[in-house]
Amino acid sequence: MTAEPILDLAHLAHVELLTPKPEESLRFFVDVLGMTESGREGDSVYLRGWDDYEHHSLKLTGSRTSGLGHMAFRTRSPQALERRVAALKGSGFDIGWSDGDMGHGPAFRCQDPDGHVIELYYETNWYQAPPELKPALKNQAQRYPARGVSVRRLDHMNGLAADVRANRIFFETYLGCRLTEQIVLNDGTEAGMWMTVTNKSYDFAYTRDHTGSKGRFHHVTFALDSREDVLRAADIFLENGVFIESGPHKHAVQQTFFLYVYEPGGNRVEVANAGARLILAPDWKPITWTEEERKKGQAWGLKTIESFHTHGTPPVDAKGH
Amino acid sequence: MTAEPILDLAHLAHVELLTPKPEESLRFFVDVLGMTESGREGDSVYLRGWDDYEHHSLKLTGSRTSGLGHMAFRTRSPQALERRVAALKGSGFDIGWSDGDMGHGPAFRCQDPDGHVIELYYETNWYQAPPELKPALKNQAQRYPARGVSVRRLDHMNGLAADVRANRIFFETYLGCRLTEQIVLNDGTEAGMWMTVTNKSYDFAYTRDHTGSKGRFHHVTFALDSREDVLRAADIFLENGVFIESGPHKHAVQQTFFLYVYEPGGNRVEVANAGARLILAPDWKPITWTEEERKKGQAWGLKTIESFHTHGTPPVDAKGH
Amino acid sequence: MTAEPILDLAHLAHVELLTPKPEESLRFFVDVLGMTESGREGDSVYLRGWDDYEHHSLKLTGSRTSGLGHMAFRTRSPQALERRVAALKGSGFDIGWSDGDMGHGPAFRCQDPDGHVIELYYETNWYQAPPELKPALKNQAQRYPARGVSVRRLDHMNGLAADVRANRIFFETYLGCRLTEQIVLNDGTEAGMWMTVTNKSYDFAYTRDHTGSKGRFHHVTFALDSREDVLRAADIFLENGVFIESGPHKHAVQQTFFLYVYEPGGNRVEVANAGARLILAPDWKPITWTEEERKKGQAWGLKTIESFHTHGTPPVDAKGH
Amino acid sequence: MTAEPILDLAHLAHVELLTPKPEESLRFFVDVLGMTESGREGDSVYLRGWDDYEHHSLKLTGSRTSGLGHMAFRTRSPQALERRVAALKGSGFDIGWSDGDMGHGPAFRCQDPDGHVIELYYETNWYQAPPELKPALKNQAQRYPARGVSVRRLDHMNGLAADVRANRIFFETYLGCRLTEQIVLNDGTEAGMWMTVTNKSYDFAYTRDHTGSKGRFHHVTFALDSREDVLRAADIFLENGVFIESGPHKHAVQQTFFLYVYEPGGNRVEVANAGARLILAPDWKPITWTEEERKKGQAWGLKTIESFHTHGTPPVDAKGH
Repeated sequence: MTAEPILDLAHLAHVELLTPKPEESLRFFVDVLGMTESGREGDSVYLRGWDDYEHHSLKLTGSRTSGLGHMAFRTRSPQALERRVAALKGSGFDIGWSDGDMGHGPAFRCQDPDGHVIELYYETNWYQAPPELKPALKNQAQRYPARGVSVRRLDHMNGLAADVRANRIFFETYLGCRLTEQIVLNDGTEAGMWMTVTNKSYDFAYTRDHTGSKGRFHHVTFALDSREDVLRAADIFLENGVFIESGPHKHAVQQTFFLYVYEPGGNRVEVANAGARLILAPDWKPITWTEEERKKGQAWGLKTIESFHTHGTPPVDAKGH
Repeated sequence: MTAEPILDLAHLAHVELLTPKPEESLRFFVDVLGMTESGREGDSVYLRGWDDYEHHSLKLTGSRTSGLGHMAFRTRSPQALERRVAALKGSGFDIGWSDGDMGHGPAFRCQDPDGHVIELYYETNWYQAPPELKPALKNQAQRYPARGVSVRRLDHMNGLAADVRANRIFFETYLGCRLTEQIVLNDGTEAGMWMTVTNKSYDFAYTRDHTGSKGRFHHVTFALDSREDVLRAADIFLENGVFIESGPHKHAVQQTFFLYVYEPGGNRVEVANAGARLILAPDWKPITWTEEERKKGQAWGLKTIESFHTHGTPPVDAKGH
Repeated sequence: MTAEPILDLAHLAHVELLTPKPEESLRFFVDVLGMTESGREGDSVYLRGWDDYEHHSLKLTGSRTSGLGHMAFRTRSPQALERRVAALKGSGFDIGWSDGDMGHGPAFRCQDPDGHVIELYYETNWYQAPPELKPALKNQAQRYPARGVSVRRLDHMNGLAADVRANRIFFETYLGCRLTEQIVLNDGTEAGMWMTVTNKSYDFAYTRDHTGSKGRFHHVTFALDSREDVLRAADIFLENGVFIESGPHKHAVQQTFFLYVYEPGGNRVEVANAGARLILAPDWKPITWTEEERKKGQAWGLKTIESFHTHGTPPVDAKGH
Repeated sequence: MTAEPILDLAHLAHVELLTPKPEESLRFFVDVLGMTESGREGDSVYLRGWDDYEHHSLKLTGSRTSGLGHMAFRTRSPQALERRVAALKGSGFDIGWSDGDMGHGPAFRCQDPDGHVIELYYETNWYQAPPELKPALKNQAQRYPARGVSVRRLDHMNGLAADVRANRIFFETYLGCRLTEQIVLNDGTEAGMWMTVTNKSYDFAYTRDHTGSKGRFHHVTFALDSREDVLRAADIFLENGVFIESGPHKHAVQQTFFLYVYEPGGNRVEVANAGARLILAPDWKPITWTEEERKKGQAWGLKTIESFHTHGTPPVDAKGH
């Protein structure tokens, strides 16, 4: 009988994005994506989709350049947090405790082998909608805004990594994440991996950084309710002069219906829909895509756009030099 | 620090429906709903949606009358199964081990206080599509049939219960299910409860049987990818002379976009979509709807149809009297 | 060889609605429906959907009570306008020329047998979007607003009439409109009629006023691009506290996917989608629905709501008594 | 006062496609596209969408090679047919009368300057559905099949032409078609034109044949009700191994939501949706796209696929040698 799976992480909770154009980025997330501002502190503005239950799912921080500040997972319980901290301490990946942030309690910081900073916490503040944002139905966090794209909730984060395999092993070993799909090249190199801690088919992914840089960010994704919503988003991006990099189209990997744009700060943002697709099997066998299979492009034949392998944030020049 | 949640059940795995019109029922599930037959044994035909990963999600059994044969949950691990069996044994709700069935291994049978039979098992046969049903994308269980409604997967089961509260306590205590929403009348009676073991907002529900009968079945639901798919299903039901009881409309409870019909054997079947709505919070606080709130009807004002409180299977006359 | 059809009217151009709550009504049309204000004059505000090519499709006029001010058709040519005027003059239905209005040139006024005022004109001002409302694609009249429901264009108008048959004959004889569907009761009474001058299956309709009043208004309809857009509108109406009278559901008559609400002034407003359904046959034979057929309710079984036969504007008490 | 427009053509009625693989082509149109066979004669099979009101909208004819047999317009009246015949006779474009075909009466044949054969007729046989294909709603031609893509109706035809301008003038002068959009290159060459005889924004189009061949066929398009239906079609094509050339995506020109595939005979087939977009203005001013504007690609940035300018049927080698 094999060991039981680790089930300590509850879900991806929020992502902190850095932007050199904080005002323009904020206007994009509020006016075009339709997110709601729920707080400000220092150089950061806290934002949320209308169905995110916590205080925020995006922390937007004015900075010298673009990229990922950190990503955060909420654990399933205080005990689960303790177990993960115990596993990380002394691993070389641990950073240490922080006092928390607006919206959540004490967080333990660590970093993956590629250098992305990850926070783990349990204590959180459930979002309390002010009167003008109270929803009509009490089982909803906030009123549907009907402004711009009106993203529902944070869906997943995609990082770039120089060594995808090392990151995969880190997330499996220390955080108990499950691999659901991956790309393995003919020479055995792992070129992409998709992992989950929920019934979603992925909560985060890492793909290979063809520039060889470390710690870079590929995109953050917000969920919409239908493919039609993604098409409508494309119309809205078009009307607002937002650069559309690729899509709408359907990925072969994970079958996500995707649309990628760049926000004014340069970070890639995706809106996506996965329909009713969920991973319910507790013993899901990871799907492995070969180099030949990936050359076929996306599900309906669209070729993967070249910038998808090279555009990350911060730009390579700006990263630590 | 409160105790950690029980996470032993992985998901609702299948439902066995009894039908006095096995041929007509089979034609409904295959030709109109678009399910695929994956096996036959005795009086039973095994059926599946194109995204169900196990051998089947519906067992259709010819019988004297209609109603629920049993419902089954798959556990997260063999150890999880052992823990649930240990908890159930001697509880008065335990029935005992069965050798399993086509498509899965040994199952432990129990019954809820209202008399519905529940199976728990871990060992299962992953569906192997024959060549003509192989999907184009390898991360999919079976080819999309494009025949009739083409339901994706089993979503949830709804039973009727004389005492909803007793059932709720049973599922919380012995199976570790989480309550996400409920209806509590002014006199304190629990009139409905929705529970989950996944990130879906519910995997099963029980609502009060106004006839006072026990062990009856309300409906089984199959998931579709979008609200548009549900509307399309309504068109298909209309063209095929299937009785539409209510919908398409949006429930206030759980916000499901629903459509209810009766299959030829008399059992109520729902096709539904929940969009990207998931319960990600590990500490979700159950939503309680009051008697007054429920009188408002469904989300957009449709009054709840009267037969929703009375039509269950088997018919009251046929139930063991 | 039968006579050739009259093809003089091009399309329903605009509707003037009266409202006793001009400010609240305006907020509804702009903030909730997502229309754009394109002018003001006296007690009137001119409004448009983002794909209406003329200056406006709705004239909202503050008034003592609610109801229809007038409806207007644009003719296909100046010659066509002359022909219709010649036919109407001396018919008893003619009112006479007006100098036109903001957005269009001289208009000839007439009234149908039930007393609704109709304007015919040819000269019009094509809408010129100001810079901030310029669309990204030059084949579109105005930028998609992504605010509230965001209705595309005026679709049709529905009046109430004491004598539906008399109105039908008037529109056939004097304006060359084509009957596409109708309801005829067992005693021969015409209870409803749907007429077109385009390839849309109807541009206006009249249904019997069960109160016996004359000249009343039933509803005005704005088109959306998909059924999903109509469902989204229902969500938006719910969040904004707008009274939903009926829908979303599919009419048996004309198969329109409908949703009816009341704007603050009391007038019924519909948002609807007809998919790709068009009447292309130049010799379409009118579909006649019998009393029995109409008792079956709407396409998927929803019963026609009682207020649909009684609620019109102005309220019966307020109508000229 | 300018002359009144000619309104003699009612709509594009059907297209005859030639195929060197008649059995495979037939299976594609019936099983994958979901069309219904309504007759056979000689080497031809007659097919229809479920909302086409005439006997057929596609005539599929086994042949040595692929391409267009002919396209046909129905006129608005017998008189209108007479007027068009009178205009064509002696023009050099007239071919002469044929006795008609299965499903329609006598037809006058002509050809455009590029050599595509066009039929005009008025007398037609309305489709009479056999009992098993009777629709539930009497205002519908045929039951919705829920098999494969289930195309609704013929939408438009696109031909290739060596001299697009000559074709445009022919259709304006002799048939009274209206130009709604066009592409004009910097040197004045007309590279594409979209024309209508209805309220649809186009019923046919011609684009420049970069190979310099004459009389070739680009694609035929069938209408679906929503963009979601087009996405669903992409999934169905994928599962059935149908070659997807481009899409789903939104054209800048005409804003059509498109998806192009090749049927087994080599002819390009499109399924598309235009939402509620109609040309209602009787004096629509043609939209002219410049060479620079077209270089931007489709509405959301997809580059126009190279084969779109070169793949036509019959293949260049097979044409007239």
